[in-house]
Amino acid sequence: MTFMILYENEEINHLFDEKIKIIQNKTVFSFSLDTILLAYFTQIKKNSKIADLCSGNGAASLFLTHYYKKAQIDAVEIQSDIAEMAKRSVALNELSEQITVYNRDAKEATDFLKKDSYDAVICNPPYFELDSGHKVNPNEQLAIARHEIMINLEDIIKTASGLLKTKGKLFMVHRPDRLTEMITLMAKYDLMPRKIQSVIPKKGREANIVLVEAMAKGSMTGVKLLPEIVVHETDNNYTEFIQRILAGE
Amino acid sequence: MTFMILYENEEINHLFDEKIKIIQNKTVFSFSLDTILLAYFTQIKKNSKIADLCSGNGAASLFLTHYYKKAQIDAVEIQSDIAEMAKRSVALNELSEQITVYNRDAKEATDFLKKDSYDAVICNPPYFELDSGHKVNPNEQLAIARHEIMINLEDIIKTASGLLKTKGKLFMVHRPDRLTEMITLMAKYDLMPRKIQSVIPKKGREANIVLVEAMAKGSMTGVKLLPEIVVHETDNNYTEFIQRILAGE
Repeated sequence: MTFMILYENEEINHLFDEKIKIIQNKTVFSFSLDTILLAYFTQIKKNSKIADLCSGNGAASLFLTHYYKKAQIDAVEIQSDIAEMAKRSVALNELSEQITVYNRDAKEATDFLKKDSYDAVICNPPYFELDSGHKVNPNEQLAIARHEIMINLEDIIKTASGLLKTKGKLFMVHRPDRLTEMITLMAKYDLMPRKIQSVIPKKGREANIVLVEAMAKGSMTGVKLLPEIVVHETDNNYTEFIQRILAGE
Repeated sequence: MTFMILYENEEINHLFDEKIKIIQNKTVFSFSLDTILLAYFTQIKKNSKIADLCSGNGAASLFLTHYYKKAQIDAVEIQSDIAEMAKRSVALNELSEQITVYNRDAKEATDFLKKDSYDAVICNPPYFELDSGHKVNPNEQLAIARHEIMINLEDIIKTASGLLKTKGKLFMVHRPDRLTEMITLMAKYDLMPRKIQSVIPKKGREANIVLVEAMAKGSMTGVKLLPEIVVHETDNNYTEFIQRILAGE
């Protein structure tokens, strides 16, 4: 049993049939379904080298180890308290040999991580532009996680492009309203979209999450629009598909 | 009753509960579900001025008059035999006051149609790049309709951008594998995607058609991913949704 300190407002959440434990603090940062879907959407070779940019409390990296027992993951989080939570969760799950947490600025990741060497980059970035009309949370830590205060979409895509080897893949979750920017910026940095998947809250609704896979130096032609993922049944319960993902199947 | 000449291999198809009649010739050109979906997807003001680029036998323009009785439509088709079919269909439906067919090159449309004056441009373009690996049809007329022989995606988007007034809308149907090019070219010519809708052959499949609406001088942010349209039930019959569109509801 690993000794573990929990600070005020922190709790341990379990996921994937209790196999993954994640330290959360709702006043600072907590993962959401987006992160779980990002990990589910990330399809890579077993022993891939992965960078997780804007990793938050490490949720996406932790989830990925469930699917990929041999992956090596470098998680980068700029906020020290949140990076600290990620480090403790890594220890709690005894995954220190698979996941390394860097309390650094993801914009500068090509300075401390090896360029052109990653098979995959995953990212659940801050969703909102500063002038988007979405109120910036007065809690600075939540604001940094949600708004493009410390990093923006172009910074992330540029960094991912620098880290990925040729044919390496970027997996990103975002809000659909940023899809035009995602695609044009990806093309600008030679990351060509391969798969786009809509996530809709209920049948017949517009998407509120989008998942995009892009390939470094891939082809401009050939993107696939995957079948949409439906999150809730009309009775508000999770669909069987989401329940299976949450169970780590 | 209008007097109408039908040439060899031509037939008259009826659509929208027999309200629209279209002269078809399968050895030259015939419309498909894509065209019907394009007309359905085109949401505009009642008295809009519309250009239909690469109009083929005029199917999309004819369908649009079913929804928009006061729209003024300029249809542009480079192939003379096919433009001729379009003209005869316009006469057959007694729509000469609403639709004008130009047997001209859509690439040059800003030379003979008024720039910055259209509320909407619609387009069902040739889908395949010349080097796409899709065999070019030995029938020249079919080849021109399907492959980018006379016009390519950038030509069309550039022309649409020239024809549209500020906040005017481009509605385009294409294959999903060209979506990255569509979006990056639209952004290049200041046509910002507003709505993207996948069309899937059956539930759970990848999209094989995509519909995109873009706005001239619109915002980079704010694209919506609409719920996917399912064409067939598992028993191969059209879904109720498609049946309703085909009935012109």
